[in-house]
Amino acid sequence: MKFADFFCPKSVAVIGAAREETKVGHTIVHNILNSGYPGKFFLINPNANEIHGKKCYKSLLDVEENIDLAIMAIPNKFILQALEDCSKKQTKFAIIISAGFKETGIEGALLEKQLIEKAKEFGIRILGPNCLGMIDFNCPINGSFSPSIPDKGVIGFISQSGALGTAVLDWAKTNGIGLSKFVSLGNKADISEINLFEDWLDDKKTKVITAYLEGVTNGNEFMRVCNKVTKKKPIIIVKSGNTNAGARAVSSHTGTLAGSSRAYDAAFKQTGVIRAKTIKDLFNFAIAFAHQPLPKGDKIVIITNAGGPGIMASDACEENKMQLAKIDIQTVEILKSILPPAANFYNPVDVLGDALADRYGKTFEIILKDKNVNAIIVILTPQAMTQELDTAKALVNAIKESGREIPVITSFMGGSEVKEGVDYLNKNGIPNFTIPEEAVQALRVMIEQESWMAKKEDSKKIFKSDKDKVKSIFEKSIREGRLELGEMESRGILEAYGIRVPIAKVARDLKEAREVVKLTGYPVVLKIDSPDILHKTDVGGIKIGIKNYKELEESFEGIISNVKKYMPSARINGISIQEMIESKKETIIGINKDSQFGPMIMFGLGGIYVEILKDVSFRIAPISQTDAREMIEEIKTIKLLKGVRGEKPSDIESIVEALLKISQLVTDFPDIIEMDINPLFVKEEGKGSIAGDVRIRIQE
Amino acid sequence: MKFADFFCPKSVAVIGAAREETKVGHTIVHNILNSGYPGKFFLINPNANEIHGKKCYKSLLDVEENIDLAIMAIPNKFILQALEDCSKKQTKFAIIISAGFKETGIEGALLEKQLIEKAKEFGIRILGPNCLGMIDFNCPINGSFSPSIPDKGVIGFISQSGALGTAVLDWAKTNGIGLSKFVSLGNKADISEINLFEDWLDDKKTKVITAYLEGVTNGNEFMRVCNKVTKKKPIIIVKSGNTNAGARAVSSHTGTLAGSSRAYDAAFKQTGVIRAKTIKDLFNFAIAFAHQPLPKGDKIVIITNAGGPGIMASDACEENKMQLAKIDIQTVEILKSILPPAANFYNPVDVLGDALADRYGKTFEIILKDKNVNAIIVILTPQAMTQELDTAKALVNAIKESGREIPVITSFMGGSEVKEGVDYLNKNGIPNFTIPEEAVQALRVMIEQESWMAKKEDSKKIFKSDKDKVKSIFEKSIREGRLELGEMESRGILEAYGIRVPIAKVARDLKEAREVVKLTGYPVVLKIDSPDILHKTDVGGIKIGIKNYKELEESFEGIISNVKKYMPSARINGISIQEMIESKKETIIGINKDSQFGPMIMFGLGGIYVEILKDVSFRIAPISQTDAREMIEEIKTIKLLKGVRGEKPSDIESIVEALLKISQLVTDFPDIIEMDINPLFVKEEGKGSIAGDVRIRIQE
Repeated sequence: MKFADFFCPKSVAVIGAAREETKVGHTIVHNILNSGYPGKFFLINPNANEIHGKKCYKSLLDVEENIDLAIMAIPNKFILQALEDCSKKQTKFAIIISAGFKETGIEGALLEKQLIEKAKEFGIRILGPNCLGMIDFNCPINGSFSPSIPDKGVIGFISQSGALGTAVLDWAKTNGIGLSKFVSLGNKADISEINLFEDWLDDKKTKVITAYLEGVTNGNEFMRVCNKVTKKKPIIIVKSGNTNAGARAVSSHTGTLAGSSRAYDAAFKQTGVIRAKTIKDLFNFAIAFAHQPLPKGDKIVIITNAGGPGIMASDACEENKMQLAKIDIQTVEILKSILPPAANFYNPVDVLGDALADRYGKTFEIILKDKNVNAIIVILTPQAMTQELDTAKALVNAIKESGREIPVITSFMGGSEVKEGVDYLNKNGIPNFTIPEEAVQALRVMIEQESWMAKKEDSKKIFKSDKDKVKSIFEKSIREGRLELGEMESRGILEAYGIRVPIAKVARDLKEAREVVKLTGYPVVLKIDSPDILHKTDVGGIKIGIKNYKELEESFEGIISNVKKYMPSARINGISIQEMIESKKETIIGINKDSQFGPMIMFGLGGIYVEILKDVSFRIAPISQTDAREMIEEIKTIKLLKGVRGEKPSDIESIVEALLKISQLVTDFPDIIEMDINPLFVKEEGKGSIAGDVRIRIQE
Repeated sequence: MKFADFFCPKSVAVIGAAREETKVGHTIVHNILNSGYPGKFFLINPNANEIHGKKCYKSLLDVEENIDLAIMAIPNKFILQALEDCSKKQTKFAIIISAGFKETGIEGALLEKQLIEKAKEFGIRILGPNCLGMIDFNCPINGSFSPSIPDKGVIGFISQSGALGTAVLDWAKTNGIGLSKFVSLGNKADISEINLFEDWLDDKKTKVITAYLEGVTNGNEFMRVCNKVTKKKPIIIVKSGNTNAGARAVSSHTGTLAGSSRAYDAAFKQTGVIRAKTIKDLFNFAIAFAHQPLPKGDKIVIITNAGGPGIMASDACEENKMQLAKIDIQTVEILKSILPPAANFYNPVDVLGDALADRYGKTFEIILKDKNVNAIIVILTPQAMTQELDTAKALVNAIKESGREIPVITSFMGGSEVKEGVDYLNKNGIPNFTIPEEAVQALRVMIEQESWMAKKEDSKKIFKSDKDKVKSIFEKSIREGRLELGEMESRGILEAYGIRVPIAKVARDLKEAREVVKLTGYPVVLKIDSPDILHKTDVGGIKIGIKNYKELEESFEGIISNVKKYMPSARINGISIQEMIESKKETIIGINKDSQFGPMIMFGLGGIYVEILKDVSFRIAPISQTDAREMIEEIKTIKLLKGVRGEKPSDIESIVEALLKISQLVTDFPDIIEMDINPLFVKEEGKGSIAGDVRIRIQE
């Protein structure tokens, strides 16, 4: 599906073109006429002959030509009829500005459903309803009723809130930020951010994709498309509604810690989407991407005419995990030959308060040649002798002459004193941030984008599995009306996917127990096996750390006599004898189903690390090997797994494998809605890991 | 010391008034003349008759009157002579603009020292040298060479960087931010931020104190003054140079984790100073404080004409630990009677996209009356029907009429469309933030300021101590050339301040051991006591968990034979028998001496919590009871001390006491430069805590 006829249609009709200036249908006509739209343009209004000096048609059917795009600003009750008219005019796209649909309640939702059904029937794609419209700055066409129109640029912006859209357009205009395309999604009944991201992948006029979203339309499809697009150009998103969702408390561990915002975070991470916290950050990042090349590493040089701001930028570099580049010794020598002795020749390079444009320019030229440097930040404060505009010119010239592809961001600090210089920089594609820390943050996300794009795709690993076994366990459980699987069933499922569980068997008597121990080896754990006993500890039904036959005998008889004493009526199947895992770390793998993205995998260290410190990581299934590794590396307590205080490292590769197998399992069987492996015992490097306990919940 | 004659002197002389426009001495004369300075003003230049049409004196001594303030812009070599002239004119203050002092190296530093000595002798206070000067917007006088001068306002700003000062003045001017006073500290040879903070405490024209600092002059004095000033008005500081300092690695635990930035954080927390991360944040906070009353609680109402920004602000409230106020049920009823049915009557209150000024105003009036509400954020997006200016007027009117003291912050989003409205709001003292999240952050610091000001001073607790004992231990140790105290010495010091240590005694034989156990009770720990053995474990010199006499006998003999085997030459004093503390949590209290603030106390849970998670808190000694409690509450693992999974809570009060006693100790004895109580065993609530091990290092 290509959106060429949406963004730059050959013919457009406004259905509901209005004479009254206060009406949206009037503003849109005005905006299209004023935007320099080069195609054919028709106004439809049964009660008017002429608007803005342009002929009005009574009905779309009166127009002699086909209409690529219809923009509707008529009462909701007329929409279906209008759509039918469109179908006769081979219309490909309709923008429905009108409100009165899903956002108003049940009746409106019903109307929206009918609308979409009809549109599908006619093969018409719908933007909205209840939206602000669309602007393409290159076609050009302003098919929106926004009063403010910013300049043309290379940033595409999608807003799920029309009101925020108007505010952003106005703000962008005032601050000289250029856009390539603007789309207001409205109720998102049909055309979604996913369609647009996919379309903009090949849009040469859009170098940066940005969006304000309150939710995504289809989690998996969103991830598939983002993963593809971000490999070519950055997607920056502000996603609101994080905390309400986060507060939603569900029963299981994973659930409590998960919540939708975590799912978005995970999905964004896995697909290279840059999450901005505010609209300000979003555009800060976007303007940095707009005209600058990506840095090839994280080594930054700061050039400044003032110590203080240099320190502030250095602080920000370290806080954002970037390095101050070690300037080459030869470069330092050259700097010494042109800078006054009181200057600082190392990083940050201080050209001193009396630096004129020439000194700035020469210093910059020299640094540009240093191969140890991946990005340059130039700070300028407007001091007595400072030449703001000339310095800007010197920087731009030096870049042109060097021919080097390296990102340069400036922080000309101040207001009216630096304005001319800043304008010149902006006109020449150099982004300027008044606050040096913001320049550093923008570089940070550029570095992340670069390393995301450089990342190689994992080879996909498929593990052997016994799907039939899983199916039959589910079927049996559902047949018996149980959605929570039994212990042995759950273990069976893990085994079907090659995840090791402790060797365990039920022994009816001591003789059988001895046979089981031949398989498990000592030490073992004994647990009463009875369908009537839920809390085994309460009846003295568990003994751990059994080290030899004597203890086995004592414990076996002890458990039986305990149970007979405390629960004489309980049916006893026998005693489960289980291998006991020693010298290990306890970790947790959890699965929770996110309403938007499907199964989400959690990983963390067990016990207080999860419960108190909430030190866990999340990814959406299916995950890649890199995802698995990153989610292990992401927890703060990773050092405990890598071995501290002379301890041997744990078998991290076996956790990677377990995560991948679980990912494969929950992807094969979406019926699993909750699962906790708690603990997953992880032994020393090379010795594997074992699922100590597992709980699985399925849906009918 | 009052600065009245500094900020608004009766007479001013510029020594080094210059004819050449490019010279600083010219700009300053120009600025004073143009600032409307009402006092007497004299120009000094031996080579000129007239500058800016004003008479020049050959020498200060030619002036017939006394001079309150001298501003010097002459080569550094003439400064001392000029100062001598000043002394003859009863000069109280001198601003030394000239550079060429400490910042240039040893010679300059020497000159600066002479300068300060002379100034002291003459009783002249010095600003600078190497500074931009001073501006008082109320006097008014512009005694600086800054080209940009912002409007008059109520924010006092101090800059330790002249260049940053010029940038901030320019930026403030461009953005309509008003200042009351501006001071550039330069080399801070005499007048420091501390003097100015103290002076501004009673300055009615300055409601908010702000500063950019690279370091403070005297840590303890800084804290004393801030603690006093912040009880009356906010101090907001950007402190740069955090990360370099943070990287400074020292040997002990506390040291490694401490570093100077932590000390600043601690000092700011303890004295109510608000730390801003960037200059942008600093002024965002300052303009919020400038004209709005402090909120009486953290319950916020958001009023908006757009859903999206309402969600963003709600997210920010929760992220900043503020509550969305529960609007009173009666208020909701009244809102229902005036808002359209599609509006949202709960929080955030959505007045809908078609809200005119009247609807905004009425809604705001109603919310203003709700006593459940502590602060109001009004969001506006410029939609088709929105009345930006009229809405601003309606809000301002409603506040005036209500007479209620409640902070109101707006977020009129956009650019030129909302400009008139925003200007009107600002003129009427309502701060506006384009980004709703920034409005929320500003309210957050206002809430903190309010609760800081409401905080009651602790009653000071002085614990009984045996200072003589400590002194004699130090003396003995120094006499013997040891700066690291021995185990028994360190314990003795803790005991002298009433901190319990395990009962322990050295037994030379089994018989004596039995006597010791009568004091300690079982279980006990045995440790070899030998001056020759440093690593007791390596020679089998430690046994723990000795539960009865039989084990005592075995272990005693075992240790002796181990030591004889592995270190036959070691002198053996005997075996130390120590009570073993059971059912306890291990915590750490550390002391490290910060170069600026003196002894800094660290607290955290022992083991991996400190080592891996770096979950620790810091305060500068001496600490109050509240400080001690807050530093315990601050660690992320506090829940472990409060008891999880049915565990009994630990004796947190005993930790508070231990922290206070340590604080008293290190304040009494500044000779202690390093100290680690690791672990401090904390038992169940009511059962106290015991210093398991302690290491103390002193200076000569």
